[in-house]
Amino acid sequence: MKPNETEISTLGEFGLIEKITQNFNSRNDSTIRGIGDDCAVIGQGELKTLITTDLLLEGIHFDLRYVPLKHLGYKAVVVNLSDVYAMNGTPRQVTVSLGISKRFTVEHIAELYEGVHIACEHYGVDLVGGDTSASVTGLLISVTAIGEAREDKIVYRSGAKDTDLICVSGDLGAAYMGLQLLERERQVSAEQQDADFEPDFAGKEYLIERQLKPEARRDVIEEIARLGITPTAMMDVSDGLSSELLHIAKQSKVGCRVYEDRIPIDYQTALMAEELNMNLVTAAMNGGEDYELLFTVPLAQHELVSQMKTARLIGRVTKPELGTCLVTRDDNEIPIRAQGWNAFE
Amino acid sequence: MKPNETEISTLGEFGLIEKITQNFNSRNDSTIRGIGDDCAVIGQGELKTLITTDLLLEGIHFDLRYVPLKHLGYKAVVVNLSDVYAMNGTPRQVTVSLGISKRFTVEHIAELYEGVHIACEHYGVDLVGGDTSASVTGLLISVTAIGEAREDKIVYRSGAKDTDLICVSGDLGAAYMGLQLLERERQVSAEQQDADFEPDFAGKEYLIERQLKPEARRDVIEEIARLGITPTAMMDVSDGLSSELLHIAKQSKVGCRVYEDRIPIDYQTALMAEELNMNLVTAAMNGGEDYELLFTVPLAQHELVSQMKTARLIGRVTKPELGTCLVTRDDNEIPIRAQGWNAFE
Repeated sequence: MKPNETEISTLGEFGLIEKITQNFNSRNDSTIRGIGDDCAVIGQGELKTLITTDLLLEGIHFDLRYVPLKHLGYKAVVVNLSDVYAMNGTPRQVTVSLGISKRFTVEHIAELYEGVHIACEHYGVDLVGGDTSASVTGLLISVTAIGEAREDKIVYRSGAKDTDLICVSGDLGAAYMGLQLLERERQVSAEQQDADFEPDFAGKEYLIERQLKPEARRDVIEEIARLGITPTAMMDVSDGLSSELLHIAKQSKVGCRVYEDRIPIDYQTALMAEELNMNLVTAAMNGGEDYELLFTVPLAQHELVSQMKTARLIGRVTKPELGTCLVTRDDNEIPIRAQGWNAFE
Repeated sequence: MKPNETEISTLGEFGLIEKITQNFNSRNDSTIRGIGDDCAVIGQGELKTLITTDLLLEGIHFDLRYVPLKHLGYKAVVVNLSDVYAMNGTPRQVTVSLGISKRFTVEHIAELYEGVHIACEHYGVDLVGGDTSASVTGLLISVTAIGEAREDKIVYRSGAKDTDLICVSGDLGAAYMGLQLLERERQVSAEQQDADFEPDFAGKEYLIERQLKPEARRDVIEEIARLGITPTAMMDVSDGLSSELLHIAKQSKVGCRVYEDRIPIDYQTALMAEELNMNLVTAAMNGGEDYELLFTVPLAQHELVSQMKTARLIGRVTKPELGTCLVTRDDNEIPIRAQGWNAFE
């Protein structure tokens, strides 16, 4: 590196994106929303097209020593569909591009595509394209998902208002704990050098499933619609709740209070944190890969939100000057910082 | 590899795609065309959305020892826009995803995005998203282009009919010769181990430009529209004319005759082939990366086609049983085989 050059890790992913895209302006009427939300929004009619894309790289996002290829194919599709649901849209198509090094065979790729196929069937989306190439090292997957939504139904990250309620679906931290568990068993296996070594996941199946086979929360979107709830802001929890709360706060120009005792955590997650001597709330706030939906709703819909089976209230939106804070069980207010997953660290 | 497993190179890219996607069926009304053309075609109204995606991987598709990052960013966008024009569509948006290894700095990525920016400005498209990640080794770029076209204007690969005329824009083989030249100068430079070595590209600038800074043929689409020509089949020449002719023949269920003396070849391409002792027609037929447009038109439009400044007639479509052949200068008919670029070889 030359003296006047900058390491990417000093900016991080979001800082880098902000810097390199600052000179880009939109010129087409059909570009409704560009960079900065879960999906881009494009199109000329009332029905808009949603576009999102995600990379999954071997050695960065997944480790094939414990991730089965079928699960990987499934997950690669699902994490993109999650972004379409996070706009309150319906995913319709995906493209799947692969870079494949020499150690992979036709059978390996067929197994990966079996997972892609199952995800497409399950979520009702069509595989419509992609690109397939050799790669120098490892496997890489680049998926683009295409969805649709009526313009007046689309929910951005920028619509949260002071006094809105903050909700999150499912529970948090389990996928991260699943990763810790898989990593621990892999190390034990390597140390024992025993070909017959069987990892022990008894009683921890939920953690493994959350890591290896996450689901996109179509059911949350459906429940919201059924109850007549109208979210003001929404995004999916991929990097961790802390990071996502900061995105919504920044883009909506608001603050928030989230209550520690309201953060949804599964029993297996709590046990695993204890076993690994990790801070449970830190794992739940920053673990990432939950693919739950974080959304805000008007205070007037409190009654409706309390009827939801797929999501719960975790806090409230405030004026921006109050900052974004976690309120602990002993009533301390701790400023939320993004400690979520960063590929450049 | 286990005994019952298959190396990917035995199937090649198209064989692999055919095998792994055979179980996929479309279920959404909005999926008009999936895998198998330059773009997928989706949408519910008269105005359709076109989607295409391409991977560019370091060490496979480009060599940063002689490809400037700005050119690479430009090319990564352009090769995708070329696929939108090849459907007779208008590109409107792109997403650009990057995998970046540790040797790249913020300044490197800014340079790459300068090229992306120039391409977006030049072709009037908006950057609307992407994903940015660390990678274990090298640089990877995954671009998705989104375009639009009126349904009745879209040209597929499958519409060529017996007696149609075959046309190609620009000239062929120059990008391939540019690559040979860049590779030769790199080797000379490495052998001389002279830091001040300056490659000699005098009189060969066109070849270098075709390799490093290809353009998508928007002007061809515009001329076709202006003259009232209605192509029956079209695709862009990325893997080489031979490979593309076989795609159109297969998908349109036709044969063809292409005339050697009609293949458009630039003077610099011819000189370079002589200098490198390579067969010129082979280079023009199989070189790849030309990003020209190959299209067929009804015989009745012969007069209109002859007025085109951006494209010329190179052959005619025949009944399928006549096969796909190149007619040499001495009137021999040689069956065309795909010898174009294959990343898995």
